[in-house]
Amino acid sequence: MTTFFEDFSVGDEEEFGEYDVTEDEILAFAEKYDPQWFHTDPERAAEESMYGGLIASGWHTTAMTMRMLVEEFLSESASLGAKGVDELRWRRPVRPGDTLSVRTEVLEKVEETPSRGLVRVRITTSNGDGEDVCSMVALTMFARRDGSGEGDENGENGADGEE
Amino acid sequence: MTTFFEDFSVGDEEEFGEYDVTEDEILAFAEKYDPQWFHTDPERAAEESMYGGLIASGWHTTAMTMRMLVEEFLSESASLGAKGVDELRWRRPVRPGDTLSVRTEVLEKVEETPSRGLVRVRITTSNGDGEDVCSMVALTMFARRDGSGEGDENGENGADGEE
Repeated sequence: MTTFFEDFSVGDEEEFGEYDVTEDEILAFAEKYDPQWFHTDPERAAEESMYGGLIASGWHTTAMTMRMLVEEFLSESASLGAKGVDELRWRRPVRPGDTLSVRTEVLEKVEETPSRGLVRVRITTSNGDGEDVCSMVALTMFARRDGSGEGDENGENGADGEE
Repeated sequence: MTTFFEDFSVGDEEEFGEYDVTEDEILAFAEKYDPQWFHTDPERAAEESMYGGLIASGWHTTAMTMRMLVEEFLSESASLGAKGVDELRWRRPVRPGDTLSVRTEVLEKVEETPSRGLVRVRITTSNGDGEDVCSMVALTMFARRDGSGEGDENGENGADGEE
């Protein structure tokens, strides 16, 4: 059953996901998108980095978090993407061998158009040791059940956000 | 020559990068990290999406932006990663065929420790039509030239940020 804007309530909390972080995936992401040595060179990272070893790109952490959100939070929903994110913080390093999971909390709902609403969601990513590694407040958009759906936006840049 | 914290000045502006966005890369990123249909299904996206066609995951846009930043802004610097990002906004869809570039503006500098400083940088990503597609304020950390380098942080979670 599809989840619409109306189905979210302020205060709703969920906890889900299990994402095993591997050195291979950290290296593959970093080589393509964030080739800084503390993300791409395990030996130098172990010897010289203030992090004490290889760590995932922060953008890799948000991408892995997104994967869990899509699988559990968005897959059955009328998600229309997101406008953006506030207060994104990489709180602790993410390392090979970590198992990430996610908590969500609905902070606010705003009816934006007859067909669409904005839901502000606090998203917190933890490692297997119960430590928070990343947090953010996402500005997500969902279709309204009684709205005319997605079709009432017009043309190329009718939408002012995406994700 | 390596760029240290001292080498940044508030008001500094740069413009650089040229990243060609392909449908193949949009699909590959989305299938792995953000498998929502408007990022993975070109035909359905063309017919049903309020965006009028396939668009890149917002996290793909930030990853592509990061690649340009590493190549031009961070590669010759004493970058120590980032604590986070404020006011991330996906302003317009990123589509196959777009050519992205980046503008940076140094907003603020804060001396955090004897060895490390924080630089707040506004980062704006544009498409080839001169439209801004993404913007954020990054909280980046750089080593100080006269500091003791990266070695004065201690142990596992000595650092409170990463990127």
